[in-house]
Amino acid sequence: MDTNRAKDYSDWYQEVVRIADLAENSLVRGCMVIKPWGMGTWERVQRLLDDQIKATGHDNCYFPLFVPVSLFLKEAEHVEGFAKEMALVTHTRLKIVDGQVKLEGELEEPLVVRPTSETIIAESFATWIHSYRDLPVLVNQWANVVRWELRPRLFLRTTEFLWQEGHTAHANQDEAEAETARMLEVYRRVMEEHLALPVITGEKAAHERFPGAVATYSLEAMMQDGKALQAGTSHYLGQGFAKSANIQFQDAEGKLQHVHTTSWGVSTRLMGAVIMTHGDDDGLRLPPAIAPSQVVIVPILREEADKPAVMEFCERAAGLLRARTFQGEPLRVKIDIRDRKAQDKRWEWIKKGAPLVVEVGPRDVAKGEVCFINRLEIGKKNFEPLDAFVDAASGRLKGLQDGLYAQAKAYRDANIRTDIRDFAAFKQHFSRKAEFLGKGAPGWVRAHWCGDPATLAPLDEMAVTVRNVPFDQSGPGTCVLTGRPAETEVYFARSY
Amino acid sequence: MDTNRAKDYSDWYQEVVRIADLAENSLVRGCMVIKPWGMGTWERVQRLLDDQIKATGHDNCYFPLFVPVSLFLKEAEHVEGFAKEMALVTHTRLKIVDGQVKLEGELEEPLVVRPTSETIIAESFATWIHSYRDLPVLVNQWANVVRWELRPRLFLRTTEFLWQEGHTAHANQDEAEAETARMLEVYRRVMEEHLALPVITGEKAAHERFPGAVATYSLEAMMQDGKALQAGTSHYLGQGFAKSANIQFQDAEGKLQHVHTTSWGVSTRLMGAVIMTHGDDDGLRLPPAIAPSQVVIVPILREEADKPAVMEFCERAAGLLRARTFQGEPLRVKIDIRDRKAQDKRWEWIKKGAPLVVEVGPRDVAKGEVCFINRLEIGKKNFEPLDAFVDAASGRLKGLQDGLYAQAKAYRDANIRTDIRDFAAFKQHFSRKAEFLGKGAPGWVRAHWCGDPATLAPLDEMAVTVRNVPFDQSGPGTCVLTGRPAETEVYFARSY
Repeated sequence: MDTNRAKDYSDWYQEVVRIADLAENSLVRGCMVIKPWGMGTWERVQRLLDDQIKATGHDNCYFPLFVPVSLFLKEAEHVEGFAKEMALVTHTRLKIVDGQVKLEGELEEPLVVRPTSETIIAESFATWIHSYRDLPVLVNQWANVVRWELRPRLFLRTTEFLWQEGHTAHANQDEAEAETARMLEVYRRVMEEHLALPVITGEKAAHERFPGAVATYSLEAMMQDGKALQAGTSHYLGQGFAKSANIQFQDAEGKLQHVHTTSWGVSTRLMGAVIMTHGDDDGLRLPPAIAPSQVVIVPILREEADKPAVMEFCERAAGLLRARTFQGEPLRVKIDIRDRKAQDKRWEWIKKGAPLVVEVGPRDVAKGEVCFINRLEIGKKNFEPLDAFVDAASGRLKGLQDGLYAQAKAYRDANIRTDIRDFAAFKQHFSRKAEFLGKGAPGWVRAHWCGDPATLAPLDEMAVTVRNVPFDQSGPGTCVLTGRPAETEVYFARSY
Repeated sequence: MDTNRAKDYSDWYQEVVRIADLAENSLVRGCMVIKPWGMGTWERVQRLLDDQIKATGHDNCYFPLFVPVSLFLKEAEHVEGFAKEMALVTHTRLKIVDGQVKLEGELEEPLVVRPTSETIIAESFATWIHSYRDLPVLVNQWANVVRWELRPRLFLRTTEFLWQEGHTAHANQDEAEAETARMLEVYRRVMEEHLALPVITGEKAAHERFPGAVATYSLEAMMQDGKALQAGTSHYLGQGFAKSANIQFQDAEGKLQHVHTTSWGVSTRLMGAVIMTHGDDDGLRLPPAIAPSQVVIVPILREEADKPAVMEFCERAAGLLRARTFQGEPLRVKIDIRDRKAQDKRWEWIKKGAPLVVEVGPRDVAKGEVCFINRLEIGKKNFEPLDAFVDAASGRLKGLQDGLYAQAKAYRDANIRTDIRDFAAFKQHFSRKAEFLGKGAPGWVRAHWCGDPATLAPLDEMAVTVRNVPFDQSGPGTCVLTGRPAETEVYFARSY
């Protein structure tokens, strides 16, 4: 790599995205092109999460890309939250007159390209729901959304991004809150077990809620520069959207009531979290559960005469490996037959973060063995008989999966300060200039906070925010910012 | 149903979409809401097609939703083809001033919400491709596209629809044309083997080509009203897009050349084809390969005391069925536990087109048997011991899959006239007024045509077009429209 994490973390991130060939900027400002290896990884995240979303009783639907402006106006907080970052469609035809583009077919009412779909989905819910027997309604959609972004960064902040958004309606607050918690837990499991991202779950402070929500819960992950990345959110929306869209049902006693709604989402931002959590100074490291290929076989074909035997050996190895499983699925194995030097290909797959990279040359075929590199220990070339390698493959992938999680968790836990008790120490902690934890960047502070948003003003210059109020609490204490009594502990951090 | 195919085919279609709960109009004109059963079916189509797209060497990517107007202007035919149906984004912020919406943040250049992605993908190809070693580039994306639609109809013509679009670049014409043919064949197989849609493959006449294409190939399916539905297209784009976006590569001799590109796509329109091919006067009939649930089990729970035994039996049946396979995948089985009358639920699933609907009441449990209905013979209630039903399930689904295809093919073949030899007979055929084949609607005419677009003018008033020039040809003959010599046979039909 041209740079590394310690030298310039931000440049390092951009370089990993490029050398792992995950995505690139398009000529449409703020919009990205997701390339095959990036898309393959996102498709794995989608598949794993979609299975869980369905297993918890949700059905996929699809709702329109466009939302009439008037729908946004129904929910005042909501429109305010998104008004400054909307893509607005105003015309439906164009004409070229003397080489000049002329827009025609002006719409009576502009359409917003959805930044999120609460308002448009609420309109459907209002027609679907009549009786308590229609509840709960549990739907999800995989979609693209647009929020105009002035300082775009691939995966982390893009004008268009891909996500899933779950939307549910319930007969009462208890059921809606249980749903909000259930989906937060689904996210936690997928992130920890498959993406190998340790996350802190908790409630967002009131001033950080989703526009229109009664309560917002988040999963916060620590990046290697000590910043927090909000990896997903789950919102209890109360009856606000139900009232503005008039989503009513007749309860068992025949009384009309408004439903309680929830929404929850994760996006391609997760790709940024994976890169910044697991990447190292050689490129990306992908958890096997989400790697599009878990084992990449590179045939070494210097002489044309070697080709048949080497290719046959590679095909056999691939076949044997595909008969093995990891996390209940057949191994994903790729043979890279591109017309390039084997060494270049090996390095390319290491930079892309493929968990196991295997090389097979004529000498290996003669000995019936393979040469392989484990992405966790790339300095080491290992030689092993093919059968032994096949037998050990699933276990090695599990070792990689668990190893990445354990490293990330140890790194995070070592960088959460719980011993900072007053504002002077707090300020000193966050005054550290490094931008990589390994060079002393400030990690997170877990401390009591009184909950008064006014007390956060001095944090602005440090770019520090309250990330969330974690579910595990130790009891009352003293506010780290003011010295006042405080009921709860929170996480303070810089963030993406 | 309130109507039927013979009475009003168009109303019948709308009613099937509604009673099978597939989709509905949204309040955004022309945009649809795809509901769980419709989305589940589309997800099956996606999965089956995606597997084939990947198996033929293509990788999924994702390209931006927005295309700058200037990119469209680079390809003159292309912009002309889409200029009258574009959603144009012109602003990025809104403000409410005295209750009035004010648009702000006007863009320097309007953005088109993609109606198709040739132009934007060509820009990426231009940066990805340098040498013949970079070729072929084989990518696909699953995406939403927008073409402003003045007379929308659910699934058939909607302003926003979902599709996949494959885009490839090759070193020469032969390879690009082979790709175009390969993907047409992938479509044919998925449509015939999984969607049970018999299709005619062939080349579109010159005046019906995709804007900017050198050759367009299509798959045409016959609906039960005798109209043709273009179920998919595959285009050889020549070097036109390569030249306007400057996609060049150095060939093996070091010479710079423009690539040859292709594109190919199918959309949620296929849902319309499935409905109009397989639906009957009781609702939808879904081919098992794409039914979200292939077997639906409805427990009969009149008495609370029966519940445990009935539910246990249903769970056991579901478990046994899920251990069986159809087309290589485990059976998809749903137990419908909603709090509704069993009879209503049974009818609901018949209208939705679930292949096998099973009812289980206390008496069935006592006898160890199930009562089931096969969607091909809904007049018949069948009783069978559970074990026998489980053993027969895969075979019955195969019978349903093959039966739907055989019915559709027989129906289509019986409604293709190959004996019409002159314009008088042609005109008489297409003057028939019925709108359902069973009532004598005109089907297709296969006949020679001289290929001169000017000869088609008299067909306008009959709303008849040339569908395609099929690959299987019998040799020269006489043009049915003009009596002139003609090289090839074509299909004439009304169409969606």
